[in-house]
Amino acid sequence: MENLYEKTISKEQIYSGKVIDLYIEEVELPNKKIGRREVVKHPGAVAVLAVTNEGKILMVEQFRKPLEKTIIEIPAGKLEKGEDPLECAKRELLEETGFACESMESIGSFYTSPGFADELIHLYYTNTLIKQGDQMTDEDEFLNVLELSIDEAKELMKKQQIHDAKTAYSVMYMELTRALKK
Amino acid sequence: MENLYEKTISKEQIYSGKVIDLYIEEVELPNKKIGRREVVKHPGAVAVLAVTNEGKILMVEQFRKPLEKTIIEIPAGKLEKGEDPLECAKRELLEETGFACESMESIGSFYTSPGFADELIHLYYTNTLIKQGDQMTDEDEFLNVLELSIDEAKELMKKQQIHDAKTAYSVMYMELTRALKK
Repeated sequence: MENLYEKTISKEQIYSGKVIDLYIEEVELPNKKIGRREVVKHPGAVAVLAVTNEGKILMVEQFRKPLEKTIIEIPAGKLEKGEDPLECAKRELLEETGFACESMESIGSFYTSPGFADELIHLYYTNTLIKQGDQMTDEDEFLNVLELSIDEAKELMKKQQIHDAKTAYSVMYMELTRALKK
Repeated sequence: MENLYEKTISKEQIYSGKVIDLYIEEVELPNKKIGRREVVKHPGAVAVLAVTNEGKILMVEQFRKPLEKTIIEIPAGKLEKGEDPLECAKRELLEETGFACESMESIGSFYTSPGFADELIHLYYTNTLIKQGDQMTDEDEFLNVLELSIDEAKELMKKQQIHDAKTAYSVMYMELTRALKK
C-alpha cells in the first residue's frame, strides 16, 4: 500500500480546556471509505533528565488524577503558548526542584500517544546543576523532590512507582550511557 | 509535603467515544483549595518488540491523524474490553504483520501521558516469529510492514520518522541489550 493519508472531511470541536482540546474528525480513508478519528490537542511538553554531582537523577513525586495514584517522574511540564522548549525545560526544572543549570542539551523528542493525541514531549539532559532555592510550583501543583541512583530508579520501575514513558526512557538512557562507558 | 492526594468533589462526563472518554473532575487539592482536572480515559494498549531471525525489528508505517503525518512504530493496538494484554499483543502482532510467535514475554508497562490520560501501554518482546500469512487489519486501519536493523531504526529516529515513546523506548531497549552483551 502506498498512500496512507487520511483527508479531513469535517471537524467538530467537542471541548476546549486548560490543558487539552478535543476534536472529532471525519476522514476519507485510503480505500475511500469514511472513518472517524478522536483527536486530543495538547500544547506539547518538556521533561528534564537532571543528574546531580553525585550521579543521582532528580525526580518528583506527584499525584496524577487520571491514574488516581502518586507516581515518581522526572521534572516535566506543559509548554506555554509560543514558549521555546529549552527555556520551558529550564523553567520547569527550577520551578519543580529549585535547581538551575549551566547548560542543557536536547536528547530527543517523542509523541506520547500518536493514536489519539498530538502531545510531543521534548526531552533534555543536564549534569551542571546549581541549587537556587526552593520549589516555586504552580498554585495547583504539589510535589516532593527526590534524588535517585540509577539502581534505585530501576528498583522503583519494578515496583511500578516509576511508571511513565518519559521517565522509563530516561532511566534506560542512563543505563545505556553507563553500559557504553564500560 | 506528605499527602499529595486529590479527592474528587465532582465529575462530569464531556464525551464518550470509540477510543477515549473525557471527564472533567473538580478536586480538593492538598492545600484544601479547589482544582480542576481534565481526564482522558483510555482502555489501555499493547505494543510488541518483535525481532526476526535476522535480528531485525518488525515495524509498521501508519498515518496518524493527530499528527497529520505518517510515522513508523512497533506493532501496537488497543485492549478490547476484558482482554488479557498478552493475548491482545499476540492478536495485534498477527493482525498488523501476519506473524505469530512461539513465545512472548513482558518487558514492562508505562503510562503514556499521566498528566491528562490514564492510557497504560503493556510492552512485550518476542524473537520466536512464525510467518502465518498476510495482514488482517481493522476496516479503518491501513499500514505498511517494515523490517529494520537497530542502526536503521536509530537513523529513522534522527530523521523523526520514528517519533513515538513506545518505539523510541524499544529501540533503546535493543541497543542496551546489544551493549550489555559486549
